[in-house]
Amino acid sequence: MISLKAQYGLKAIVALAAHYGKGALQAKEIAGSQDVPVRYLELLLSQLRRARLVEATRGKKGGYFLSKKPNTISVYDIVAAFEGSVLFPQNGRNRKDSLSFVWKEAEKSVVKYFRSIKVSDLVPKLKSGKEMYHI
Amino acid sequence: MISLKAQYGLKAIVALAAHYGKGALQAKEIAGSQDVPVRYLELLLSQLRRARLVEATRGKKGGYFLSKKPNTISVYDIVAAFEGSVLFPQNGRNRKDSLSFVWKEAEKSVVKYFRSIKVSDLVPKLKSGKEMYHI
Repeated sequence: MISLKAQYGLKAIVALAAHYGKGALQAKEIAGSQDVPVRYLELLLSQLRRARLVEATRGKKGGYFLSKKPNTISVYDIVAAFEGSVLFPQNGRNRKDSLSFVWKEAEKSVVKYFRSIKVSDLVPKLKSGKEMYHI
Repeated sequence: MISLKAQYGLKAIVALAAHYGKGALQAKEIAGSQDVPVRYLELLLSQLRRARLVEATRGKKGGYFLSKKPNTISVYDIVAAFEGSVLFPQNGRNRKDSLSFVWKEAEKSVVKYFRSIKVSDLVPKLKSGKEMYHI
């Protein structure tokens, strides 16, 4: 499941991607531009640090920055940092279930889609500040 | 998210599909063949009745049966009976989010996949009692 955490986590990552190569961003700067509470954002950022997608520096000019190039980070990397599984809770029963291939195939196709979108692709969408696609 | 409810709900529907045209099945018969506790299964069946996928009759030969042909019911119908949304919790914030198209497109592709699988396709898989596909 794509929790709100993962959704805000992606926004934070894309905000950092937009600033890539221009030094660190403070949590309050990201929070302000993305309309997320700072304390909540800091929780997400520490989870993204544990997933080695984000690094942090201390001091006056300290803050957060991406640990690698935006075109090498996919949406799936962010989802995986927050969710164990995209579609369904994993447990022993799932594996024994004779119909589990239905859910596994669906999971596989979503993961493939998430892997195909790089964070760098999303920078222009975030900047625009409105939905580009209506479905 | 595909909860365990939806996963067991699908198994119940496929068990009923295997019995389609041969009268009603009792909850305990389905439960026994699918290794699900009867009380839990009855909860799922009442949810599937509200979604008009299943009907019930009372009396000695009473039980549950599909309300329509197994080849006109898709996996998506079962998922929709249990989940509001496949991939992510819907709320006002999702819609305002400039990156929400990422999640919406993913949702769309999973829904399309679930719609493409009919309950009748799954009858032989369930009968076999083991996983047919290894991913």
